[in-house]
Amino acid sequence: MTRGCFIALEGGEGAGKSTQARLLADAMISRGTDVVLTREPGGTPGAEAIRELLLHPPGEGWKAEAEALLFAAARSDHVARLIRPALDAGKWVICDRFVDSSRAYQGGAGGIGDEAVKTLHKIGSGGLTPDITILLTVDPAAVTRRLKVRDGDRSDAIGGRSIAYHAAVAETFGRIAAENPDAFAIIDGSASPDEVHARILSVIEPLIERSQ
Amino acid sequence: MTRGCFIALEGGEGAGKSTQARLLADAMISRGTDVVLTREPGGTPGAEAIRELLLHPPGEGWKAEAEALLFAAARSDHVARLIRPALDAGKWVICDRFVDSSRAYQGGAGGIGDEAVKTLHKIGSGGLTPDITILLTVDPAAVTRRLKVRDGDRSDAIGGRSIAYHAAVAETFGRIAAENPDAFAIIDGSASPDEVHARILSVIEPLIERSQ
Repeated sequence: MTRGCFIALEGGEGAGKSTQARLLADAMISRGTDVVLTREPGGTPGAEAIRELLLHPPGEGWKAEAEALLFAAARSDHVARLIRPALDAGKWVICDRFVDSSRAYQGGAGGIGDEAVKTLHKIGSGGLTPDITILLTVDPAAVTRRLKVRDGDRSDAIGGRSIAYHAAVAETFGRIAAENPDAFAIIDGSASPDEVHARILSVIEPLIERSQ
Repeated sequence: MTRGCFIALEGGEGAGKSTQARLLADAMISRGTDVVLTREPGGTPGAEAIRELLLHPPGEGWKAEAEALLFAAARSDHVARLIRPALDAGKWVICDRFVDSSRAYQGGAGGIGDEAVKTLHKIGSGGLTPDITILLTVDPAAVTRRLKVRDGDRSDAIGGRSIAYHAAVAETFGRIAAENPDAFAIIDGSASPDEVHARILSVIEPLIERSQ
């Protein structure tokens, strides 16, 4: 049995990750591929319970260190109970956010540093990396408009952080992707969903060919 | 302002940690010391919410890696929001379990190793160590009797693990304490609560003198 492909979609709030993950999953399913579509934080009962603590924290909210540990715990459960078994069974896994979100949010914007996040990922999930990570970039002004439509006045403990925080997230995503050109595809997420979807499909074409 | 003293009580299930932590706190308060009595996992609203996930896991239960990350997350919140501020304010902190429980349970019995647990503690809590750790040891047969009285048929996801798991916990506690004789006091917890309390007081006498 050939191991399945693992594709992560990354980017800031409102970049279109969930929409594109769903479109990609549908396209692969229609080609006859066995697909697991999942998201972080979450994807398993344990990780979804941690997601709830992260997005709606009890008490005064999490500092960056505790937040990074909670994300790593959720990811550890998700990888051990869903992602690795699916890949081992030959399924494709399409994941809305993965470890690079922790590197951008807690590592970069939160200030705990890239090495700490990578160390937590190594301890928690054996350092599993996607076969390819799609980074969706969007213009900050366009994001503000999209989020207003999507969330109105409701935003969670992370999405609702300052403009400076989200600018640091975007900056860190860009730097991580630039440092690993073979592992990342940077795609402009401000085009129409169909256009973005077509670009993602062309990027993963080599993985599709390799798996046939 | 002199920094307060930080005392941790450690040991397996039913060793008498909670009872002794309370007796010690009462004794220090009656001497006029400002004391914070706390416990792990827990001690802050965030850490108590994580405690609930640890002791009553959703889904299939946590694997050792996710469990270690959750304990480290709870400890990070506890240290940042309660323990460090209290010590900095000159208060004594008496804590029922601390990082050595993670070393014994997830590191030793759970198999993720001592280095991984110490690394998580460094990232999450700056590697804070108690001024002294009291390890209460008890005979396994005596523990079984105590737990039957205390818990009946109710036990949580960790307390209810196999005899082999708890034997590995006890073995690891013993090894950690033997490796760090200056940082640990090993006290036989099978004596009467008053006797054990008297021994603990004699062990911390140098800390009391130092702080006066």
